[in-house]
Amino acid sequence: MNYMKKLSRRSFLGNSTSLSLAGFFGLMPALDRSNQKPKGDFVHHVYFWMKNPDSAEDKAKLIEGLKTLKGIKAIKLARIGVPANTNRDVIERGYGVSWLLFFDNLEEQEVYQKHPVHLKFVENYSHLWEKVIVYDSVDV
Amino acid sequence: MNYMKKLSRRSFLGNSTSLSLAGFFGLMPALDRSNQKPKGDFVHHVYFWMKNPDSAEDKAKLIEGLKTLKGIKAIKLARIGVPANTNRDVIERGYGVSWLLFFDNLEEQEVYQKHPVHLKFVENYSHLWEKVIVYDSVDV
Repeated sequence: MNYMKKLSRRSFLGNSTSLSLAGFFGLMPALDRSNQKPKGDFVHHVYFWMKNPDSAEDKAKLIEGLKTLKGIKAIKLARIGVPANTNRDVIERGYGVSWLLFFDNLEEQEVYQKHPVHLKFVENYSHLWEKVIVYDSVDV
Repeated sequence: MNYMKKLSRRSFLGNSTSLSLAGFFGLMPALDRSNQKPKGDFVHHVYFWMKNPDSAEDKAKLIEGLKTLKGIKAIKLARIGVPANTNRDVIERGYGVSWLLFFDNLEEQEVYQKHPVHLKFVENYSHLWEKVIVYDSVDV
């Protein structure tokens, strides 16, 4: 709200950066623009490479941990996946678990990052993975 | 349908693999299991590294090309993104464009791969990218 106020006091003339940043940081309402589009303009996709890639038990444990995160309110959509049965040169199959989240905007994603349930998850389950790659993207 | 028939003839006793594969390949109906979950059990996420990473024109062209794919019926959800304004060690920011698709199952994804509009897209726009990484995952 304060940010909105600050923004409205500003002159936008010759200040297109502010305008595009407003969109970027989710000040534009997160509307469903088509029936294909769920809420949330921010896509957070995490891929976990397991410390013990052959341990089904470890993978199940990590999935159990990720499920605890689903209750965090900032999340608009959450999906847990494992590599599909596709295999072409361009397909990365080395990871163990995929964790896909939609948020309304960057701020909501930050709420999630700092959420006690998320911090607890990292504390309790990070021994299971060796590497993590995160792709954060915003809709165009 | 033939696969369903074949499956129903099988004994599931001591054959939990068949059961989980049935779920895996989308024979389970693609229901919305919660209000957070859209249709489709198959997530296809493509990241494009641009040949000219600094060319806004090339990026716009690629995005224009991706938009032509959105009409392909097999697609349940399509989102085009660019790297967000986040920056931690684990975050990959080198790609230019993110292309996220949901399908009902592996077969529908294959329909998309072979669709004339998709083949045309590759023909017309592949000169714009240098590298592509694809993550295909199925819901657990």
